[in-house]
Amino acid sequence: MKKASETVGLPPGTPVHVGKRRAERVRITVIDYDEARVEEKEVKSVEECFPFRDKPSVTWINVDGLHDLEVMEKIGTHFGLHPLVLEGIVNTEQRPKMEDFTNCIFVVLKMLYIEEENDEVAVEQVSLILGSNFVISFQEREGDVFEHIRERIRTAKGRIRKTGSDYLAYCLVDAIVDNYFLVLEKLSDKVELLEDELLPNPKPETLPAIQRLKRSLISLRRSVWPLREVVNSVERGDSALIKKATRLYLRDVYDHTIQVIDTIEALRDTVAGILDIYLSSMSNKMNEVMKVLTLVATIFIPLTFIAGIYGMNFKYMPELEWRFGYAVVWIVIGVVVVSMLFHFKRKKWL
Amino acid sequence: MKKASETVGLPPGTPVHVGKRRAERVRITVIDYDEARVEEKEVKSVEECFPFRDKPSVTWINVDGLHDLEVMEKIGTHFGLHPLVLEGIVNTEQRPKMEDFTNCIFVVLKMLYIEEENDEVAVEQVSLILGSNFVISFQEREGDVFEHIRERIRTAKGRIRKTGSDYLAYCLVDAIVDNYFLVLEKLSDKVELLEDELLPNPKPETLPAIQRLKRSLISLRRSVWPLREVVNSVERGDSALIKKATRLYLRDVYDHTIQVIDTIEALRDTVAGILDIYLSSMSNKMNEVMKVLTLVATIFIPLTFIAGIYGMNFKYMPELEWRFGYAVVWIVIGVVVVSMLFHFKRKKWL
Amino acid sequence: MKKASETVGLPPGTPVHVGKRRAERVRITVIDYDEARVEEKEVKSVEECFPFRDKPSVTWINVDGLHDLEVMEKIGTHFGLHPLVLEGIVNTEQRPKMEDFTNCIFVVLKMLYIEEENDEVAVEQVSLILGSNFVISFQEREGDVFEHIRERIRTAKGRIRKTGSDYLAYCLVDAIVDNYFLVLEKLSDKVELLEDELLPNPKPETLPAIQRLKRSLISLRRSVWPLREVVNSVERGDSALIKKATRLYLRDVYDHTIQVIDTIEALRDTVAGILDIYLSSMSNKMNEVMKVLTLVATIFIPLTFIAGIYGMNFKYMPELEWRFGYAVVWIVIGVVVVSMLFHFKRKKWL
Amino acid sequence: MKKASETVGLPPGTPVHVGKRRAERVRITVIDYDEARVEEKEVKSVEECFPFRDKPSVTWINVDGLHDLEVMEKIGTHFGLHPLVLEGIVNTEQRPKMEDFTNCIFVVLKMLYIEEENDEVAVEQVSLILGSNFVISFQEREGDVFEHIRERIRTAKGRIRKTGSDYLAYCLVDAIVDNYFLVLEKLSDKVELLEDELLPNPKPETLPAIQRLKRSLISLRRSVWPLREVVNSVERGDSALIKKATRLYLRDVYDHTIQVIDTIEALRDTVAGILDIYLSSMSNKMNEVMKVLTLVATIFIPLTFIAGIYGMNFKYMPELEWRFGYAVVWIVIGVVVVSMLFHFKRKKWL
Amino acid sequence: MKKASETVGLPPGTPVHVGKRRAERVRITVIDYDEARVEEKEVKSVEECFPFRDKPSVTWINVDGLHDLEVMEKIGTHFGLHPLVLEGIVNTEQRPKMEDFTNCIFVVLKMLYIEEENDEVAVEQVSLILGSNFVISFQEREGDVFEHIRERIRTAKGRIRKTGSDYLAYCLVDAIVDNYFLVLEKLSDKVELLEDELLPNPKPETLPAIQRLKRSLISLRRSVWPLREVVNSVERGDSALIKKATRLYLRDVYDHTIQVIDTIEALRDTVAGILDIYLSSMSNKMNEVMKVLTLVATIFIPLTFIAGIYGMNFKYMPELEWRFGYAVVWIVIGVVVVSMLFHFKRKKWL
Repeated sequence: MKKASETVGLPPGTPVHVGKRRAERVRITVIDYDEARVEEKEVKSVEECFPFRDKPSVTWINVDGLHDLEVMEKIGTHFGLHPLVLEGIVNTEQRPKMEDFTNCIFVVLKMLYIEEENDEVAVEQVSLILGSNFVISFQEREGDVFEHIRERIRTAKGRIRKTGSDYLAYCLVDAIVDNYFLVLEKLSDKVELLEDELLPNPKPETLPAIQRLKRSLISLRRSVWPLREVVNSVERGDSALIKKATRLYLRDVYDHTIQVIDTIEALRDTVAGILDIYLSSMSNKMNEVMKVLTLVATIFIPLTFIAGIYGMNFKYMPELEWRFGYAVVWIVIGVVVVSMLFHFKRKKWL
Repeated sequence: MKKASETVGLPPGTPVHVGKRRAERVRITVIDYDEARVEEKEVKSVEECFPFRDKPSVTWINVDGLHDLEVMEKIGTHFGLHPLVLEGIVNTEQRPKMEDFTNCIFVVLKMLYIEEENDEVAVEQVSLILGSNFVISFQEREGDVFEHIRERIRTAKGRIRKTGSDYLAYCLVDAIVDNYFLVLEKLSDKVELLEDELLPNPKPETLPAIQRLKRSLISLRRSVWPLREVVNSVERGDSALIKKATRLYLRDVYDHTIQVIDTIEALRDTVAGILDIYLSSMSNKMNEVMKVLTLVATIFIPLTFIAGIYGMNFKYMPELEWRFGYAVVWIVIGVVVVSMLFHFKRKKWL
Repeated sequence: MKKASETVGLPPGTPVHVGKRRAERVRITVIDYDEARVEEKEVKSVEECFPFRDKPSVTWINVDGLHDLEVMEKIGTHFGLHPLVLEGIVNTEQRPKMEDFTNCIFVVLKMLYIEEENDEVAVEQVSLILGSNFVISFQEREGDVFEHIRERIRTAKGRIRKTGSDYLAYCLVDAIVDNYFLVLEKLSDKVELLEDELLPNPKPETLPAIQRLKRSLISLRRSVWPLREVVNSVERGDSALIKKATRLYLRDVYDHTIQVIDTIEALRDTVAGILDIYLSSMSNKMNEVMKVLTLVATIFIPLTFIAGIYGMNFKYMPELEWRFGYAVVWIVIGVVVVSMLFHFKRKKWL
Repeated sequence: MKKASETVGLPPGTPVHVGKRRAERVRITVIDYDEARVEEKEVKSVEECFPFRDKPSVTWINVDGLHDLEVMEKIGTHFGLHPLVLEGIVNTEQRPKMEDFTNCIFVVLKMLYIEEENDEVAVEQVSLILGSNFVISFQEREGDVFEHIRERIRTAKGRIRKTGSDYLAYCLVDAIVDNYFLVLEKLSDKVELLEDELLPNPKPETLPAIQRLKRSLISLRRSVWPLREVVNSVERGDSALIKKATRLYLRDVYDHTIQVIDTIEALRDTVAGILDIYLSSMSNKMNEVMKVLTLVATIFIPLTFIAGIYGMNFKYMPELEWRFGYAVVWIVIGVVVVSMLFHFKRKKWL
Repeated sequence: MKKASETVGLPPGTPVHVGKRRAERVRITVIDYDEARVEEKEVKSVEECFPFRDKPSVTWINVDGLHDLEVMEKIGTHFGLHPLVLEGIVNTEQRPKMEDFTNCIFVVLKMLYIEEENDEVAVEQVSLILGSNFVISFQEREGDVFEHIRERIRTAKGRIRKTGSDYLAYCLVDAIVDNYFLVLEKLSDKVELLEDELLPNPKPETLPAIQRLKRSLISLRRSVWPLREVVNSVERGDSALIKKATRLYLRDVYDHTIQVIDTIEALRDTVAGILDIYLSSMSNKMNEVMKVLTLVATIFIPLTFIAGIYGMNFKYMPELEWRFGYAVVWIVIGVVVVSMLFHFKRKKWL
């Protein structure tokens, strides 16, 4: 895994792959469509997708795997991307952002997964380049949330085949935001599970689980929060690349983003509440232990004292000679116990 | 119950009913009125209410039940609603929002109830479409807070019959916001009850009750907070659909919304205060138990030691032979007890 | 006492008295003045004050008691008040606000008192209507903070007789804000008292006192905070009813409001600090009890063990036969006690 | 000491001295200078400084002591000050503010001292009136932070003699802000001292010291925070009284103010950290006491039980007759102690 | 080390070196370049670098060591710097800021290091003067993060030799911001280390380590937070000194700054989480000790009472005479122990 620090000292605009290498090889697929036809193929070499740039039809080039800088630079040169855009695509530790270069719009997003093996939220960076008649998407590895969109293009379902590249770009962003709802639902289920198993029987092991959940939510928040600003500035921006009809849809994505943030905040509140209940339960449990045990001790300590008195070996202890001395001691003990219990009961300590 | 995640992968603008299905069947009622006359009827099929669109009189179409997408789409087509509006109406997990489509204004609101059975705050989504001479309202189920308004239309009470569709829409929003005061009063009563039963005698069961109340208030806040922005943008907006006279009334609704938020915040402060008192009371109670019990133990432990000394079996223990040894021991014990009690008293530990 | 919920379902602009009824009967006084003369009288029926509307002199109509809706509506009709203004005057649970109707300005304020009987902050709503040559003030009951102003009008002290109705309205607002300083000083005294009696000797009863104070400050804050916005929007507003010279004075009131808010925040900080010290003192006191008592227990438990050993009845226990066995035990006990005390001392537990 | 409440009921613009009377008598000094000459004198009566108003040279009138309202009113009348300005000067409980009256600028500031006797932060109000060719400064008592400036005027050091009254006013503000650094350094030293004596050996007495420091910082913050806005609005304002060259310097003062605020926030963070460490240390110390003492008790209680068993007086107790019974008991005791210590060691409780 | 307070009383614009003196002597190096050639030299006296001002090529003058005010003033005079700029350069306790003097832009930044010896974050102030064809950088001591840039100039790598002084200034800022990532990675490693060694085995020594880390992050935040504003105002500013192409790069630095702030906030959250876990672990550990020990005590105290009873010396105690009295006692003891253990087990206290 490469760290951001490895880029230190390089000239600005030098693309360096930062982050885990998640794909074996770079895989490039092209979908080219207009209202009449669709063409879909996986290209062997990057040069194969260059001719599409000058066709009037909408072209979606998807690149899985960011580590091959040579391929990146070829794309950059051919499609006229600024060096900083290339640097941004391959540095996977960026925050979501949007940059308007008159000839294209550059958007960085975060795609989220719940990893099956360890139940944590994994983050994958997705970059989009929106040109007048093409969209280029860059992903860290194969497998994405865009399969529905490909299917819609193939089957001409919805409006996608009748509209331009800006609507395609919107669909990609929308798919990523929609996916957040899936992730949030899974996290929400985990919160509920925690609540159901915690409230009846709190254990010390629950604390790390709560903290893990809290951290997942914070990392989620960090991915989603700047997205709000990104979608807003695309919608409000004056770029000629975004048509008016598409802006309405972007407004809708914006509302979804706000809703995601709302849900995250609500989950955070719930987790904070769980934490409070957990801490309070632990302390109640401890208090209960201490109370019962101390009660036992308190009752028996005075009794032991009484027994100790008549265990003394003084020569002249009249009680020891009495016929019913022993019985009297038991009676005294009984009285002490009963009056103590009565006192505790009245004070509601029992 | 359908979740937001079920909409993932569908083309944007596809209406999918998200949320619980709360109504058996879709029920459509129409009220058509002008200053002179009122017509009110329940329609069997959705097509029956289409002719009203082109009448000059004000028409209020109310739809209870959102699950029948066919009906929805017919309404959408006839009244020229954007696909995203339809999607928004049937997705009941949205936050309150307002969207201005030049020919109509689309508003999403939350209607709140205190559910009788479990005393929790239930949320129902209400969507309003305001056109130049009609208002369409969509609710999740029958039963609403609009009965007063229907009565006023029938009896021509107030100004409602003399004004246009914008005033009707205002009345609907106003009724929803007014209803919040009812909900808040019930919550406020619960807070007071909690305060009255908590302060004299705190129990561990009170904590979950406090947390439930806290959560109700947070969910309330989430429903009301965005409403402020919604009402404000309708009032400040430049839509030709809202007449100037109506804006004054919207300003009033805005003030009510702020007041609702204020009251929620005040209740949250109060609940936070109750929580503090609860935690402090629990800890005081525990401290009191520990203190009294430990005092008892402390007094008797040294005494037991004294008794233990004269329980030893040494051959040469002069005290044991003394005539008044036993009496002296009792005197010593008395002195120890009295001086300890005196010391504790002076230190205010008793 | 009537609640806000009783207005639910009524047509907007229907005046309903919300809040406690604090006055027996409605009492209306009129002061009419210009530079040359003053006329002051209490009117029997509301119609008596109507002629003043059309006089060029400045008229101040003061209404004590809001429950008589008939009187209210007469005033509203004669002075051309919007129905929402009337509704706002009689609903005493509003937050401070300012509404500019071109022909008049409507201001809602909160007058604060410290109630003698229970030392709590009481809130009374005061509404002002500022017209071109009149001011109407509405109060919940007789008795107010305006007596000084009446005196100044009668004696022509200050500039009040030479200026218009806007200056009179300013004076009323100023009197209300000035009165906040009195309330704050009383609260401040209570905080100091709490501090002086708390720090030397914390008791469990102090917690509710602190909480009560905290709540007073929160309620105060809620009354004063929106006032800031109110005064600011009157001063910054472009209403022709407020002359430029008066705006300077309003600026001054604005500064006072900020100062009141500052003082409230400072008091809240102080109360929070007192709470921290209280909690810490309570816990220190408990710790001290526990420590001393446990020390006592710890010293005597090993000693009791030693005594227990030589209380055993084994046939063959050589020490029991020794001449100085008993003395040796006492020496051992002494050594144990001294070394323990020494150890505790070194560890600073004593 | 007079309180703000004493001004209640007076006509607006009535000057009333609020705050402690800190000076015996009002002392007025005048410095009049241009590039060529300086004239400095203490005037007996306030009228002596009036002629300077109409001279083209820059005049600095300094007034120490605010209680003589007659003097104040004479100055006000002669220099054309608004009644509210006079009221503001003598009310020493104001927050820092700036008011632009076209013919002059009125600025209220707070001068801070660390009082030698009780180590607390004392606040003195300083008001400045900046006119086209004069500056009037009002202070509560003699002794200030302006001596350096007087010296610079006398010796013509720096640019002060070549510039106008706005630069002089800037110098005064700058001197006050610079002085904050001195106060902050002293507070910073106290924080460090607290840190050095607290960490090795926390005592209950440290808590009030921390709270006092916290309160000093809060009061400091309250004096400095509004200053930021004041300096900014003077710099950004469009008053003709401030020349462009001076604005650059005001920008510098603004930066200093921000830096002061930053330092205060940093100190507050540090104090909060100290408080956390203190509370944690106190609790650790208590825990340590409890732990060691409870360990002792736990070891000896079972041992005492064993001894108690063989102290019983049953006729038929075979062990008592054994030759080595006593020795066996000691061995058992040894085994119990060692195994307990081993167990505690393994659990890291020792 | 000189403190800010030493500048008190000096005329504004008097340069005074504030902060530690970190360099032995002032060292000045000059790099002068255009597309065709590079000239690099260390100058003996400051006058040697003056001729470069009027050359068309780009000149970078780097000054290490700020204590020699004479050198500073010579540079100031020759390059036409405002006195406040000079004062700002030598006062090393400033916050990052940017000042636009039409002929030059003055930027103050903080360069951060992790000090090897004590693992703390050290802050060094770097000031930049950007003129039309020169950049002057001032550092507190030799050794910086600019070596890569010098190398790029020498080898004409990247675009640096083809661009103007604004691009050079950008490169310097970029290098400083890039270096923050290095510092953050080291801090991040320390946080992880803390997490790995803390969770399995919390010790009281961990608290100061956590607090130190917290403080490092706060100090970092204070250095980076204002930088955001600085970079933004340079980028958004309308200075003719910054070319449009360079603004794009500045936008990139801005994004990096936001990312640094994000990472700092994330680390702060993590440290706060560690603190919570630490406190909870400490309290759990203590609770566990208390619980086990108290359980032991509770079991043995009643048993000791039983033994005490039969250690009494009453003449008439029938049980003592019984043949199996002693055995019965052991059976009773066994029953008590087993039933207690069973009870504790059922209550989950074991």
